[in-house]
Amino acid sequence: MPSTEKPAIVLLSGGLDSTTTLAVAQRDGFVAHALTISYGQRQHIEIEAARRVAKAMGVKNHRVIEIDLRVFGQSALTADIPVPKDRNPDELPTGVPITYVPARNTIFLAYALAYAEVMRSFDIFVGVNAVDYSGYPDCRPEFVEAFARLANLATRASVDGSGQFKIHAPLVKMSKAQIISLGIKLGVDYALTHSCYDPVGELACGRCDACQLRRQGFVAAAVKDPTRYAGPSAKGETKK
Amino acid sequence: MPSTEKPAIVLLSGGLDSTTTLAVAQRDGFVAHALTISYGQRQHIEIEAARRVAKAMGVKNHRVIEIDLRVFGQSALTADIPVPKDRNPDELPTGVPITYVPARNTIFLAYALAYAEVMRSFDIFVGVNAVDYSGYPDCRPEFVEAFARLANLATRASVDGSGQFKIHAPLVKMSKAQIISLGIKLGVDYALTHSCYDPVGELACGRCDACQLRRQGFVAAAVKDPTRYAGPSAKGETKK
Repeated sequence: MPSTEKPAIVLLSGGLDSTTTLAVAQRDGFVAHALTISYGQRQHIEIEAARRVAKAMGVKNHRVIEIDLRVFGQSALTADIPVPKDRNPDELPTGVPITYVPARNTIFLAYALAYAEVMRSFDIFVGVNAVDYSGYPDCRPEFVEAFARLANLATRASVDGSGQFKIHAPLVKMSKAQIISLGIKLGVDYALTHSCYDPVGELACGRCDACQLRRQGFVAAAVKDPTRYAGPSAKGETKK
Repeated sequence: MPSTEKPAIVLLSGGLDSTTTLAVAQRDGFVAHALTISYGQRQHIEIEAARRVAKAMGVKNHRVIEIDLRVFGQSALTADIPVPKDRNPDELPTGVPITYVPARNTIFLAYALAYAEVMRSFDIFVGVNAVDYSGYPDCRPEFVEAFARLANLATRASVDGSGQFKIHAPLVKMSKAQIISLGIKLGVDYALTHSCYDPVGELACGRCDACQLRRQGFVAAAVKDPTRYAGPSAKGETKK
């Protein structure tokens, strides 16, 4: 391997944000090693989306690891709690959404850090975003910065001085429309991606917060939405 | 549950340090919820030790979760790498030991944080120790402090203001002998615990770094070592 190859670990869920993040990592010259974590989530089909994306975008390695966050529950994504539907994305309640999974991004980044150590990579990309849906504590810039600080005390490199970890969160301050515009510029095929929290078979429900934010994003970016939604009843279909 | 019950999450490996840490948590008035993580380690029998300890010490709940850090390997505990034997504990090589598991304590604390959130606990106990075997980056006080900082940005409580996480590492600056003396004072039965990295059946090898540090600790604390070692060939058996 030539020494000019800069390896990066990219957390890839198969959604719109993480796929765009992968495209950014590649644009920036990194050789991407994708890490997908199957955690017992309701929207398990996003794992298949991650595999499609990794293949289409030619990542160097794609690891899918299985953990089970259902043992902790307390989220609409990992417990028997209904996913909220048909809410106006501009009028979501404040506070932490019921789809927040306790400490999920801390756990994901911890695994990414282990993978990075093993691959001798010091660059971890994560598609967190604090703008469109700001209630997730572990999607904020200050969380990302605190994780970077931890990473630089947690690992072999902090003892042998071989490098400094950087946690790249290129989307953290972008709107969904800006993310989509960026991805389109970088050649992302969003038809491969999956965002829905509560899919109907292989189709997006069109009604959960994730679907609505995604749909609005395509509208605002003036990009044709390639998502296959379950039936015409989905709200917002006719929204400008 | 009376509101005076203070729940704490205690990371319990079944070893000498984590068992003493559990005793400290109980001494300090916490109701202990123990979390044991089976991660594909060579010394898998420590999980049984954790179960024995949790039962004997009357923890409120004991969760054992299964993850697999062998997917990352690169440690003598999770890959096909020999565990070093017969080294003088006073003359261990500097640097990170080959028994370091990439990002293990970061991953463990991330899971403990998830468990704490779900249990509405703000106190996490971890038996890390930076004195006797100082090469592990994720056993140092600065690592523990950085994790506490992260925890207070990562979780629901950082948004709703319901509390501040504290990561308790009561043993971090103690010698093995001091830890044993403390545990004996608190009534710990060390015969229940397991420290060996490379057990022979149910017996400790007596030769790995963990065995030697443990053995020296009992000698220095002037406490009878209840550990069952594999055969009289183990070095140090006759050490005063």
